[in-house]
Amino acid sequence: MAKLLLEVPRGARDFQPSEKIVRDKVIGKIKEIFEIYGFSPMETPTFEKLEILEAKFGAGENSDAISEIYRFKDQGNRGLGLRYEFTFPLARFVGQNPQLKLPFKRYQIGTVFRDGPIKAGRYREFYQCDIDTVGAPSILADAENLAVVRDVFSKLGLEVVIEVNDRKLLTEIIDYCGIDKSIAIAVIISIDKLKKIGTDGVRNELLDKGIPAGKTEKLLSVLNEVKNGSNEEKLRALKGMLGETEGLKEMDEFFEYLGWFNVDVEFNPALARGLGYYTGPIYEAFLKDQKIMSGSIAGGGRWDKMIGKYIGNEKQSIPATGVSFGIEPIMEIILKRDGAVRQTVTDLLVIPIKAKKEAIKVVQDLRERGLKVQVDLLDRSVAKNIEYADKLGIPYVGFLGEDEIKQGKIKIRNIKSGKEELIDISKVNINL
Amino acid sequence: MAKLLLEVPRGARDFQPSEKIVRDKVIGKIKEIFEIYGFSPMETPTFEKLEILEAKFGAGENSDAISEIYRFKDQGNRGLGLRYEFTFPLARFVGQNPQLKLPFKRYQIGTVFRDGPIKAGRYREFYQCDIDTVGAPSILADAENLAVVRDVFSKLGLEVVIEVNDRKLLTEIIDYCGIDKSIAIAVIISIDKLKKIGTDGVRNELLDKGIPAGKTEKLLSVLNEVKNGSNEEKLRALKGMLGETEGLKEMDEFFEYLGWFNVDVEFNPALARGLGYYTGPIYEAFLKDQKIMSGSIAGGGRWDKMIGKYIGNEKQSIPATGVSFGIEPIMEIILKRDGAVRQTVTDLLVIPIKAKKEAIKVVQDLRERGLKVQVDLLDRSVAKNIEYADKLGIPYVGFLGEDEIKQGKIKIRNIKSGKEELIDISKVNINL
Repeated sequence: MAKLLLEVPRGARDFQPSEKIVRDKVIGKIKEIFEIYGFSPMETPTFEKLEILEAKFGAGENSDAISEIYRFKDQGNRGLGLRYEFTFPLARFVGQNPQLKLPFKRYQIGTVFRDGPIKAGRYREFYQCDIDTVGAPSILADAENLAVVRDVFSKLGLEVVIEVNDRKLLTEIIDYCGIDKSIAIAVIISIDKLKKIGTDGVRNELLDKGIPAGKTEKLLSVLNEVKNGSNEEKLRALKGMLGETEGLKEMDEFFEYLGWFNVDVEFNPALARGLGYYTGPIYEAFLKDQKIMSGSIAGGGRWDKMIGKYIGNEKQSIPATGVSFGIEPIMEIILKRDGAVRQTVTDLLVIPIKAKKEAIKVVQDLRERGLKVQVDLLDRSVAKNIEYADKLGIPYVGFLGEDEIKQGKIKIRNIKSGKEELIDISKVNINL
Repeated sequence: MAKLLLEVPRGARDFQPSEKIVRDKVIGKIKEIFEIYGFSPMETPTFEKLEILEAKFGAGENSDAISEIYRFKDQGNRGLGLRYEFTFPLARFVGQNPQLKLPFKRYQIGTVFRDGPIKAGRYREFYQCDIDTVGAPSILADAENLAVVRDVFSKLGLEVVIEVNDRKLLTEIIDYCGIDKSIAIAVIISIDKLKKIGTDGVRNELLDKGIPAGKTEKLLSVLNEVKNGSNEEKLRALKGMLGETEGLKEMDEFFEYLGWFNVDVEFNPALARGLGYYTGPIYEAFLKDQKIMSGSIAGGGRWDKMIGKYIGNEKQSIPATGVSFGIEPIMEIILKRDGAVRQTVTDLLVIPIKAKKEAIKVVQDLRERGLKVQVDLLDRSVAKNIEYADKLGIPYVGFLGEDEIKQGKIKIRNIKSGKEELIDISKVNINL
């Protein structure tokens, strides 16, 4: 038989223990914060019925994701696709379970799939991590979302800036510039690229989309005018132009609630989010140190209309709001900061010196006390065992000969320092 | 647009919070045991290159799994398939990473996929949970596997019986009955069904496979003769027939090591495991109370040859041994035993009484102390809030009016008993 080319598929990755250990720790910390805010875990299938994934009203103008679905059929010839995010499965789930008690607060963490171009930091299977509150129309839930964002990044030791805006307000600004509301989403998707492609890039896109030059300039100048100053100053400037609008009132309310939760944010009237389904407040978090990573590492907003559309009854709107945390950029930042030095969870490698049977008993005692212990399974020399521990990042080895065991002791060697110490077996306590 | 039929694909499931909370707890306990034995987490992609999944030497005669692969292509027309278990991806990974330090002890927990018939308890996407030790030829690693099995089920509060056998020994018995070694695997796969289809069923299968009647009867009678008695008695009986064989010597060694780990097992010479790739000790765990569940809930063994075959160099054999835990049957048993009464992780629902702003501050204090708290987001009546807590299984609600807040207190109501108590906010301590 021909030799197999052993490799993962294009765009996929193995998470070796060295990386998976860090990944599990990061996700564990995030889950801890989610749960103190009363979000519960939930899991939808890895694949969905294709017609549900392809429902256009979900992705709005973001139809890239739809063209990038991995499509296949089951043996009954039913069309299926790998999930490409968690919002549509949530909308499907809520629509399917009308008995659900609201508000429904859930989180989902897992991988999603996009058969798209591969660039640096982009994969075809990657983690997403979402919280959503379904059934709470109050903007208080959006403020709570941002308290979660603040607490997650504080727990991870990352300094972030949270930017906020509002889709209603954006639409009002677009309207104020004389641009037809019917193309507001297309305009918003261009505005979303301001940071990436700059004013000139956005200008070109808007002109390409058929927005007249005068209206395009007006829009860009409004956004430019309210770029600087405090949140209050920006809001005041906008009130001067637009008057007392619904979007501005919503922003006032949002800021009030954010104060209750003591969350600091920066109002960015050009923040847009590249998805069609948002209906109210929107937000993104960025690393304070933009040199390390410039893109957003969390983002979300209110999406009040989608579930109703899924149910096929737009009048029966079910409000929803959520945040998605960018596990992949977060992992990139944390691996850069902390490294992935340990290739094993093992804290102690026990090396029996001609007393294997008795050593196993001691090893089992240590394990019963919660220590993470490996025992030499290969009858290797002390030097080989120490090399193994060193290469894997096991911080301690323990020698167990007949003498030690008789005394109820173990000789522990710190791999880094080389220091050895004879310790009571009952007192071995390795805290890492 | 036509109304969508909102449902999961055939054979897939949503894990609602009520079930996912229990599932996460069970998996958390299992991981804890894995890690004290020095197994580290690892994760391979959800899909693999099709040619790797279809490699016949992997599945051996168990070609069902191969015919049940969900197959698809990426946009570059590369053949892909959803993983149907974790052993082949591990073999692929080890083959691909020759620099790996051995022994390599890893665990993987996640879902796998089989596009097969759906029966009670069988799904097309389901959890698997494997530990494997790669690079340790000693049967000591197999004994350690069974210490893990014992500890996992003890941690989950499940009483189990662990049965053991050896593939070498099985092959020797088949040889002793005059059956050609070249069809040993086919015979073993029939023997594996003894519990399920009984002696008559296995007899018919063996005759169908072309084994002469005389040899078939001899095999069945040998297996029958050594069915009862202590492990020692069964081994002695087999020694009487076969003499001092390699398989019997391996069993002696295995029992010695199991004694070191203090693991009780039952020797079952008819235990076979339905997979082609085992080469030495094999084992399965069954619930002691067979009325609750009769099938095995964990199983594994030594598979020394497969990685070499993957590398395309059978001489460069890399020994490996592992256990797979049946998360789905374990979940079925535990949900039957404990139920899934809570639909949320939330321990406390705070109901502000006309003091929302101040209540949020208290809620944030409680959350900072690690309590899992929701706050009424809908301004509902007390009665509606209590009904919500009751339906979701939130055990406590807390009332916060201006008076309570001024006194630094919160009125906590136990939903089940209806008892109310005024407690210092700094002393709220809900342990569940």
